[in-house]
Amino acid sequence: MTDTNKNIKEPRITLVGAGPGDADLITVKAIKALKTADVVLYDALVNEEILDYAPETATKVYVGKRSGDHSFSQAAINNLMVDYALNYGHVVRLKGGDPFVFGRGYEELIVAAEYNIPACVVPGISSSIAVAELQQIPLTHRGLSESFWVVTGTTASGKISDDLIEASRSNATVVVLMGIHKLAAIAEVYKLQGKNKLPVAVIQSGSTENEKVAVGTVDTIVSAAQEHNISSPAIIVLGEVVSLHPKFQLIKEVYDVVTQG
Amino acid sequence: MTDTNKNIKEPRITLVGAGPGDADLITVKAIKALKTADVVLYDALVNEEILDYAPETATKVYVGKRSGDHSFSQAAINNLMVDYALNYGHVVRLKGGDPFVFGRGYEELIVAAEYNIPACVVPGISSSIAVAELQQIPLTHRGLSESFWVVTGTTASGKISDDLIEASRSNATVVVLMGIHKLAAIAEVYKLQGKNKLPVAVIQSGSTENEKVAVGTVDTIVSAAQEHNISSPAIIVLGEVVSLHPKFQLIKEVYDVVTQG
Repeated sequence: MTDTNKNIKEPRITLVGAGPGDADLITVKAIKALKTADVVLYDALVNEEILDYAPETATKVYVGKRSGDHSFSQAAINNLMVDYALNYGHVVRLKGGDPFVFGRGYEELIVAAEYNIPACVVPGISSSIAVAELQQIPLTHRGLSESFWVVTGTTASGKISDDLIEASRSNATVVVLMGIHKLAAIAEVYKLQGKNKLPVAVIQSGSTENEKVAVGTVDTIVSAAQEHNISSPAIIVLGEVVSLHPKFQLIKEVYDVVTQG
Repeated sequence: MTDTNKNIKEPRITLVGAGPGDADLITVKAIKALKTADVVLYDALVNEEILDYAPETATKVYVGKRSGDHSFSQAAINNLMVDYALNYGHVVRLKGGDPFVFGRGYEELIVAAEYNIPACVVPGISSSIAVAELQQIPLTHRGLSESFWVVTGTTASGKISDDLIEASRSNATVVVLMGIHKLAAIAEVYKLQGKNKLPVAVIQSGSTENEKVAVGTVDTIVSAAQEHNISSPAIIVLGEVVSLHPKFQLIKEVYDVVTQG
C-alpha cells in the first residue's frame, strides 16, 4: 500500500469492548472492526491475543494507564486517536470490558465529533456482570435480589462515591469496579448500615488464568482478600447472592461453629 | 453417528448468552460452545441466525416464553434441558442477552447440579448496558452519573419492585428491563420524587433492524413511547445521561420555547 492510498482513507473511529480478559469473550462484531483497522489503540486490561485479529500491517499502540503510571493521560489518548484517524484511516480504540462502563468512552466520542470523525461503539462483555457470573454468582436471583447496582470505587475526587454510600443502604446486589484499594473503607461504609454479616466476594483478573477469588462477609472480607493476595484489577460484589458461591457455604459452616462456641 | 455413539456421550449443559439481538454481538466462546452442541434450547429473544453456528445435525428446540404465551414454563424448560443432556450429551441453553441478568440462569444451574450434570456459563452482551450504548447513551459519564442500577419491571408478584422505588430516589442511572408495560406506573414513581424533568429513553429491539427509540422526560415519556409505538421487548433508561442523546437536545429546545412562552 502506498502513502497516496493511505492519504485518501476516510478517518473513522470505532470504540470496541475487549471483554474482561479471556480472549474468547470478544464478539464477532469486535473482530470485524479489528479486521478493518489501520491503527489499534489498546488499554492495559486488554488481552493482547485479541490484537491478532487486526491486520499484520496495522499499527498497534499500547496506551495503557494504570494507577501510578501517568505516561498516557486521557487527553494524550484523545490526541493520538484523532491524529491516527486523520492520517491513517480506521482507528479501533480497544478498551477492557465495555467502553461505556466507567471506560470514559463517551468522552472519546465527543472528541471524535469535535473533529467531525464518524465514530461508533461496539459493546463488550462487562466485568461488572461477567466476572461474578463466571464464578457462578448471579447478580439477581429470585428471593435474594431483584436488582444490581454498579458503582466505581475510583471517583474523580478520590473519595468514596456518594452513590456507594446510597448503595450500601439498598437491597440491590452491589458491584464495585476499580475499588479493591478501598476495600477496607467500603467495608466500613457497610458496617455503618449494620450489614456486618452481608456476604462479599472479591475477584481478581476474572475470566483469566490468573483469576483469584476470596469470599467472606463485610466483617471478614478485608482479611480474606489479604490472605488470598487479591490486588488490582479486581471487582467487589456485595449482596446475599454471594452466599450462593460454593466457597461461601464452607465459610458459613465455620462461622456457625464459631458463633455457637 | 449411530445411536450407540449417542448413548456414550457425557451429559453436560452450557448456558450461553446470545446478546441483545444483533447476531454479531455473539462471543467467540459462545460460538465454540454451539459448535459442540448436540441440542440447542433457545429463547424467544434469540436471533435465530446464531443457531447456524451449531452443527446441522444438532436438535434445535424453541422454548420461548413471552408475556401471554405459557406454552413453556420454566419447569418444563428445566425438564427438557435435563432430559436432552442425559439422552443426547451437550445441551446449549441459548438465552437472550446475558444468562444471569434476570435470565433465571442460576435456577437452571441448580437443576443441572441436582442431576449431577456438569454445567457452565458463557456470559453474553447484556441489553442492560449495550442497548443504551448503541444509541450512544453512556450509563455513566463524569459530571452526570457515577453509577448505574439495573432493575426488572416484571417481578414475581406482578408489582413494581421495591428496588425500583428506591432507585427512583438515587442519583444512579436506572435501567429497567422488561418494564415497558409498566412505563406509566414507573413514571408515577419518579413523579413522586419530583423528578418530572428527568430525561428518559425507551428503546425497543435494540441492536436489531427493528430498533425504535423514544426520548423525553418523566412527564412526557408515556406519550412519546405511544407516538413511536414502542412495545416489548424494550428497555427504559432514566437519568441525566439520557440528555446526551441527540434526540433529547431537540426536545430540550422545544421544551425551552414552551416554558418561555
